[in-house]
Amino acid sequence: MRLSQMLFVTLREDPAEAEIPSHKLLVRAGYIRRIGSGIYSYLPLMWRVLQKISQIVREEMNAAGAQECLLPQLQPSELWKESGRWDTYTKAEGIMFALIDRQDREVGLGPTHEEVITTIARDMIRSYRQLPQNLYQIQTKFRDEIRPRFGLMRGREFIMKDAYSFDADEAGMKVTYQKMHTAYCKILTRTGLKFRAVDADSGAIGGSGSQEFMVLAEAGEDEVLYTEDGKYAANVEKAIALPPDVVTSPFSSYEKRETPGTETIEKVCKFLKCSPTNVVKNVLYQAVFDSGITALVLVHIRGDQDVNDVKLQNELTKLADQFGGKTVISLTVPDAEAQQKWAAKSLPLGYISPAIADDYIKPSKEIASKFVRFVDQTVTDLENFVTGADESGYHVVGANWGKEFQKPALVVDVRKAKAGDRAVHDPSQTLQTARGIEIGHIFQLGTKYSQAMNATYTNEQGEEMPLVMGCYGIGVSRLAQAAVEQSYDKDGIIFPVAIAPYHAVVVIPNVNDADQVSAAEKLYAELNQAGVETLLDDRNERAGVKFKDSELIGIPYRIVTGKSLKDGKVEVVQRATKAVQELALDQVVPTLKQWVTEALHS
Amino acid sequence: MRLSQMLFVTLREDPAEAEIPSHKLLVRAGYIRRIGSGIYSYLPLMWRVLQKISQIVREEMNAAGAQECLLPQLQPSELWKESGRWDTYTKAEGIMFALIDRQDREVGLGPTHEEVITTIARDMIRSYRQLPQNLYQIQTKFRDEIRPRFGLMRGREFIMKDAYSFDADEAGMKVTYQKMHTAYCKILTRTGLKFRAVDADSGAIGGSGSQEFMVLAEAGEDEVLYTEDGKYAANVEKAIALPPDVVTSPFSSYEKRETPGTETIEKVCKFLKCSPTNVVKNVLYQAVFDSGITALVLVHIRGDQDVNDVKLQNELTKLADQFGGKTVISLTVPDAEAQQKWAAKSLPLGYISPAIADDYIKPSKEIASKFVRFVDQTVTDLENFVTGADESGYHVVGANWGKEFQKPALVVDVRKAKAGDRAVHDPSQTLQTARGIEIGHIFQLGTKYSQAMNATYTNEQGEEMPLVMGCYGIGVSRLAQAAVEQSYDKDGIIFPVAIAPYHAVVVIPNVNDADQVSAAEKLYAELNQAGVETLLDDRNERAGVKFKDSELIGIPYRIVTGKSLKDGKVEVVQRATKAVQELALDQVVPTLKQWVTEALHS
Repeated sequence: MRLSQMLFVTLREDPAEAEIPSHKLLVRAGYIRRIGSGIYSYLPLMWRVLQKISQIVREEMNAAGAQECLLPQLQPSELWKESGRWDTYTKAEGIMFALIDRQDREVGLGPTHEEVITTIARDMIRSYRQLPQNLYQIQTKFRDEIRPRFGLMRGREFIMKDAYSFDADEAGMKVTYQKMHTAYCKILTRTGLKFRAVDADSGAIGGSGSQEFMVLAEAGEDEVLYTEDGKYAANVEKAIALPPDVVTSPFSSYEKRETPGTETIEKVCKFLKCSPTNVVKNVLYQAVFDSGITALVLVHIRGDQDVNDVKLQNELTKLADQFGGKTVISLTVPDAEAQQKWAAKSLPLGYISPAIADDYIKPSKEIASKFVRFVDQTVTDLENFVTGADESGYHVVGANWGKEFQKPALVVDVRKAKAGDRAVHDPSQTLQTARGIEIGHIFQLGTKYSQAMNATYTNEQGEEMPLVMGCYGIGVSRLAQAAVEQSYDKDGIIFPVAIAPYHAVVVIPNVNDADQVSAAEKLYAELNQAGVETLLDDRNERAGVKFKDSELIGIPYRIVTGKSLKDGKVEVVQRATKAVQELALDQVVPTLKQWVTEALHS
Repeated sequence: MRLSQMLFVTLREDPAEAEIPSHKLLVRAGYIRRIGSGIYSYLPLMWRVLQKISQIVREEMNAAGAQECLLPQLQPSELWKESGRWDTYTKAEGIMFALIDRQDREVGLGPTHEEVITTIARDMIRSYRQLPQNLYQIQTKFRDEIRPRFGLMRGREFIMKDAYSFDADEAGMKVTYQKMHTAYCKILTRTGLKFRAVDADSGAIGGSGSQEFMVLAEAGEDEVLYTEDGKYAANVEKAIALPPDVVTSPFSSYEKRETPGTETIEKVCKFLKCSPTNVVKNVLYQAVFDSGITALVLVHIRGDQDVNDVKLQNELTKLADQFGGKTVISLTVPDAEAQQKWAAKSLPLGYISPAIADDYIKPSKEIASKFVRFVDQTVTDLENFVTGADESGYHVVGANWGKEFQKPALVVDVRKAKAGDRAVHDPSQTLQTARGIEIGHIFQLGTKYSQAMNATYTNEQGEEMPLVMGCYGIGVSRLAQAAVEQSYDKDGIIFPVAIAPYHAVVVIPNVNDADQVSAAEKLYAELNQAGVETLLDDRNERAGVKFKDSELIGIPYRIVTGKSLKDGKVEVVQRATKAVQELALDQVVPTLKQWVTEALHS
């Protein structure tokens, strides 16, 4: 392609809407244009990047035995009502765009395709002899995000590869899941990006286990905890770890103490000269279920630890049945107004005890049914602990479960693991932290959808069994931007060869110099002929503008038909390192071909 | 691919929803599955067909200098309000799905992308030096059809290639348009389908000229008129032709005659012993504009001719301004109730005169402003004609314009051309008729959108000028089905090699015969290696089932490792002709490779 003929415009200024480097760079370099909130056009250069990523995905998915198809984006509400997700997705969470068609029927715009594919499987799969099956598509998806931002990272319209597998049993599903894990590692390796596979929370998709694939980048929205031995890595939302050991409590008998001005753990420990590991912290939350019911939640956790909201939300979701719902749609710390609703008198914040409900909340039968108490496993075995006295300015010390305080039945892990914690698999390893961008997520779904939608097959014994499912997503457009977020410098993008829109650009410094033009035209033709995808910058612009643009758009190799042409040479610049070298004209094609081949197969 | 591992199920029965052969066959052969009204899943075989068509389209578009991109499917209403199409598309015609997002903003689902691309051009194109540009995408489009039917032919979600060009002037746009015409001819030739490019009506897209590309098929929804010399072809909606010559009128003086029971042209001509070419027929219509205003329309046309509704609608659209609108949303013959609304007394149907309005409709000022009279060019020069007398059972004869009847000012061509008419370019040629499926449409848009949306550039003289646009569509999913509609037999689909999901299928008649299996596996591997895309039917099914399935899905070549294997031979069957031949094992790969190569380059 000749740049003079391409719809190609670069910008000097960062776009006002962009917050992170990759977003700024993609707009400035002419890859994308915003059309509306969270809605972008992919311009010709970006389209090539997306096609390259898609092709790598496609090749590895096919090699893993998956079959490409294309499912509809318009999804009849009936299917989502069968799975029980319509109200959650369109109303409670509101993440699915929904519309009414001219026949007055409700239709959703697919954010994901479990319902559609399960319908197809239900129709087409009858016998164990047809299993396993794994179908995928590469397609635009829609999510009505509350706060679209970061360009393609959190858009309302984006490109996904999503795959859905069907197996006869759990063991088969795990084999397929492992194949997908391997395929994802191959895909990410081939893109040339640094990544990490981590244990993950399954969220609204459901199922029994899942892993995320993170492209590592400083501006990543996710925190990853991992061990140096490579044996453990997890999203912080899901991570488990051993907390620090408990320091023996300095208190041996139960006593109420005046502790003025000690609303924080730090202050009370300093005042009482004890360790935060001696304290039972009591945290109140308010959870709203998709049924509309609001519950009051009390969590007991060790003083030196914090609650992981995602884990807590998952524990509450397990109880959603009790509240006439399926999921929790919000989890917040109750504000003053909410406190008034729940408490009989003003709460002694900072001095709350595990028994706060008995004294303050005095639940009526109605409130009692909406009150949930969890004890985190960090405090189940704590002895002679310190905790609030339910009175401002007072704590109790030397307290014990089963004596002064009733131990709640619901023991859970809702603790937030953090860097420095010891690993469960090997306490000599401590957790490290890194930031990542989630670009893939694989799920062991199990029978959640097949049971809800009655997708069964007949096994060898003639019994009707639910299909056992997995699902596997990769954010194709997100991956394109994550690559930029991982790899740029002050001059622009540094694309890995495998997903760069072009491998090389031949720059003619002066288009009025016939020698420069003819040498460039020859190289341009020969490089493309040799499979080195090459742009020709033949624009009537100053050389400096062309060099800046080639750096901004991040083409791996730049060939300049400049001054050294009189010696039969051209200048070749590597974008990533800025290393410059001169190559004899007849060496350009073989050298570039070798570099590209090596980069694609390293 | 091994059929035993593919999600592949064929049906014996025609699906209840299907009306035309191609729809029945695609469902029965396991290419598509219905998910909702006008909404289909493309299963793995279909996905390959779509990819092959897309790839041909892509190669020819790129060769013609167009650049691939991807534009958003979610389109902010603001853009469509700028072009003035929001209300027409979402309300008056209701063809665009629209929704309200969580920020309470109106968003449409793209049925076409003029607004989005014009916004991008407005932002990015500043100078004549950037022109011409031609951008295209291959993408799912949405239309909320009143009556979705015929499978992928008239679906609510379908795949299109749409391209949009920007030129500095009309002459440049015509050059680009011609390039696209050539590219479309190449694309269709490469798919292996019989097609015809025809003059077409531009419809709601607008612009000054357009052509459709028709895949010829008996069940086609469109009628095409063409001449044998290849110099003229047009959609019947748009076709022009010379009507038969007028027979000299037998009447030379004006007279009112009693003509009982002659409500039809045939009857009155028989009664008066004259030719239908002597008669002025007066036809009433009722047109509803997008402004909500309804107009009464009277058309005078020669007795042997019919009104072409599309032409009439276009003439009315030219007048839409007068009615506070932009377009006509319905055109009907007024029913009894509507007649009552317009007419002062019961209308003498069958005996209406060109002056019907004076006597019967007696327009008030208000009705007058909503009354339109057109004279078709077939009757402008008619002399001594016969027409109704505005009284049941009476006609007048020997009438003349300017004497007994005022000639209306609006002379138009609203005549329906038909097979047998003489061609305008050469009256010795008569029009022939054929049926076709519209799979492509190219438009000379001109400045309709660039002016409405203020998309300008600066020309060499420094003047700001509107961009001159063209747009070019191909229905990719529709083309896939049109191919089937053009080519099938009683046993199933006959795909052309270029767009068949696989070139060949190796069938193992008996999977328990080790020799058959090993010969088949070897051929399967070697054929794929040689670039002959080959399926292996290794299912544990009866041979007859496999043969039937291979015919149903329409794979061009079938190789059977059957009885003749003992002589070192296999049976090779050509799907289209059913010609059977035996080939020595070592001849299979070179022969098949040659056949496929020849088919792809013929």
